[in-house]
Amino acid sequence: MRKFVAHRAKRLISNATVSLLNPHHHHQSSLSSSNHYYYYYSSILPRFFTSDTSMASNNSTPPLTVDSLNPKVLKCEYAVRGEIVSLAQKLQQDLQANPGSHPFEEIIYCNIGNPQSLGQQPITFFREVLALCDHPNIIDRSETQGLFSADSIDRAWQILDQIPGRATGAYSHSQGIKGLRDTIAAGIEARDGFPADPNDIFLTDGASPAVHMMMQLLIRSENDGIFCPIPQYPLYSASIALHGGTLVPYYLDEATGWGLEISELKKQLEAARQKGITVRALVVINPGNPTGQVLAEENQRDIVEFCKKEGLVLLADEVYQENIYVPEKQFHSFKKVARSMGYGDKDIPLVSFQSVSKGYYGECGKRGGYMEVTGFSPEVREQIYKVASVNLCSNISGQILASLVMSPPKVGDESYESYSAEKDGILLSLARRAKVI
Amino acid sequence: MRKFVAHRAKRLISNATVSLLNPHHHHQSSLSSSNHYYYYYSSILPRFFTSDTSMASNNSTPPLTVDSLNPKVLKCEYAVRGEIVSLAQKLQQDLQANPGSHPFEEIIYCNIGNPQSLGQQPITFFREVLALCDHPNIIDRSETQGLFSADSIDRAWQILDQIPGRATGAYSHSQGIKGLRDTIAAGIEARDGFPADPNDIFLTDGASPAVHMMMQLLIRSENDGIFCPIPQYPLYSASIALHGGTLVPYYLDEATGWGLEISELKKQLEAARQKGITVRALVVINPGNPTGQVLAEENQRDIVEFCKKEGLVLLADEVYQENIYVPEKQFHSFKKVARSMGYGDKDIPLVSFQSVSKGYYGECGKRGGYMEVTGFSPEVREQIYKVASVNLCSNISGQILASLVMSPPKVGDESYESYSAEKDGILLSLARRAKVI
Repeated sequence: MRKFVAHRAKRLISNATVSLLNPHHHHQSSLSSSNHYYYYYSSILPRFFTSDTSMASNNSTPPLTVDSLNPKVLKCEYAVRGEIVSLAQKLQQDLQANPGSHPFEEIIYCNIGNPQSLGQQPITFFREVLALCDHPNIIDRSETQGLFSADSIDRAWQILDQIPGRATGAYSHSQGIKGLRDTIAAGIEARDGFPADPNDIFLTDGASPAVHMMMQLLIRSENDGIFCPIPQYPLYSASIALHGGTLVPYYLDEATGWGLEISELKKQLEAARQKGITVRALVVINPGNPTGQVLAEENQRDIVEFCKKEGLVLLADEVYQENIYVPEKQFHSFKKVARSMGYGDKDIPLVSFQSVSKGYYGECGKRGGYMEVTGFSPEVREQIYKVASVNLCSNISGQILASLVMSPPKVGDESYESYSAEKDGILLSLARRAKVI
Repeated sequence: MRKFVAHRAKRLISNATVSLLNPHHHHQSSLSSSNHYYYYYSSILPRFFTSDTSMASNNSTPPLTVDSLNPKVLKCEYAVRGEIVSLAQKLQQDLQANPGSHPFEEIIYCNIGNPQSLGQQPITFFREVLALCDHPNIIDRSETQGLFSADSIDRAWQILDQIPGRATGAYSHSQGIKGLRDTIAAGIEARDGFPADPNDIFLTDGASPAVHMMMQLLIRSENDGIFCPIPQYPLYSASIALHGGTLVPYYLDEATGWGLEISELKKQLEAARQKGITVRALVVINPGNPTGQVLAEENQRDIVEFCKKEGLVLLADEVYQENIYVPEKQFHSFKKVARSMGYGDKDIPLVSFQSVSKGYYGECGKRGGYMEVTGFSPEVREQIYKVASVNLCSNISGQILASLVMSPPKVGDESYESYSAEKDGILLSLARRAKVI
């Protein structure tokens, strides 16, 4: 939905402003060209080039031009940070420089879910623990007891004790701090009722790097395809393009509440195979973005069966697991569904993505998240670990936050009541807005 | 150096333990094979596969095997997180389970510079500001004044005021929070004596993602080469392999204190071109890792001239700019050197990488850093921005820390004396150890 709306808005805005922004680009650029989102950017950002008197150049072609860039980069689109955002920033600069220059006073950014930029407050307990882990020197000072809840102090101690030398400034294991992965695995077990192994958890800087990692592993060439829902979240199309693969679309059906029909998957798989595409994985976003649908368990079983039959890796984007606003719907992780069907770890390769950016927590700027990786051979797992290790580790605050999200205060904890009130308030407000839309 | 030592150590350890670890791999694996670092991993990590009774499989080949992985991933090596680390973790588990099972009591990890894991304490001022930004609710409480220095409270206010809505949990601009980039640009200007533009700064989760971003932009195929020093830091070889390019080596000369000879660059460039390689960029690590050399300004001028003449992008890894332990040597950024030669922004494409992980700060786990990108056309810049935007933004704590590192307490600030004492103590200790080695 977001992408479609954005498309329409972009066209309107572009038509209205293109001559203002960069008249000579107007006829050159086609709105359907692959990199048009970024086309006007040069005119919006301040100039990059100084007017230094340049020395005589021995080499007339610049070392790097758009034509000599990696073409996969050129192909990649990322609408949520594209042209409309750039235009909005330009308008904001106008408003700052010349108040009253537009018939509105403020720009509100709705290009991406970024609740705290719109006034949503963070959960106090989470931030207390983060602050204490950032500055452990104050944890046993008497003033601290007046400022922080007792259970946040306890939790910070627990976490610090899980980190060798209590060093929150040290690189961790490339999958993340083991004790935090234990906590997350326990949280998954409590959620699903099936075992989870801390060695299956890879902590990442939000869900995006985890998605990129899997695309990097799966895509060998443009003949490799990844099944993605349409409408989709543009991270997937961007990541597939950057890694040089082919997005194989399947269309969600608005008439049935954006349902996922197996017949549609079969049809599209057939069509892709006829074009010589090896479809390697199926991305399912559940609960859906941008559609908001929650898959029925029966439907999820069919999807698992389809992946099993067709030899696809199931990439389950489950970052909206806390964003369900109707009492009759319930989130079931794909791992839970697969296990409840009797499929064990050997039977189906399945990656579940989770993030601290979504849910009631909305901690987008903290860049925390994880993927739970099951059903791969030890040899493939080594390769996933290797790719994770090339960036050393994800940021420790994000790691800590991912563990808190999967293990929030419990009944009886000092923070429990205030935590619950904050959480319920946020979810109620989100539900109200969902209803309005 | 590290890599060479690691190679030797690895061989010794492997010979001694290979049969213990996984006897049937002994003859299969060659120590010179490209992925041998990860060869024993499967035997060291706990088993990944459950013994669930698996359902009848409709598809006998698993969807993802090592043979059907992206071959670029298989090619990639990353020694600092490879086999030796895995073995060390195994030995540590042994020691925990059976104290006395080995003739030593403790494992000390020296595989990567990770000072806080070896007891180096973080700079108090940095952590105070981070904690206050994590939990702004306490910033104006009276207890806070007893716990935090006055200038850390002031600085936290300044930073919060630079963030729309003071929302440290919101996604930022994809290049990083504008106010923090202003601070960093001012820090670069003060360091170099030449202007720096906040729009040239891209804040990243440590330097590694910045290096990957540039490799992604530069490398189109295995016919594109990137000049790298040997000995090198393995991030470069790993990143070039992952992006499918060719590492073009140039050898540092131990006899001249690991100097960088232009004649060597010319020779290697010629050789690469004869093989049909288009060399696109030159990586210089200055001060050097693992060699510790500090380039003379004259040498840097020659390097700039060489890049200019040969049409190479200069990728300047300057993360060790604070790690100089001899009074007669001084760090000069490549941008400063290029500007002092009269080259303006239009004349030479230059990327400088900086990180909060190195220097006296050693904040590896915070994943903060930036690249300063100069000398590219607006069109290429748009593409860099686009790639940055696909991961939305780097973590906000890391962004804040990057700004603190480039703008630490000044004479007259309440924290200045304790900050200086902490910094000097760390640098003195590092210098002492450098001398011992």
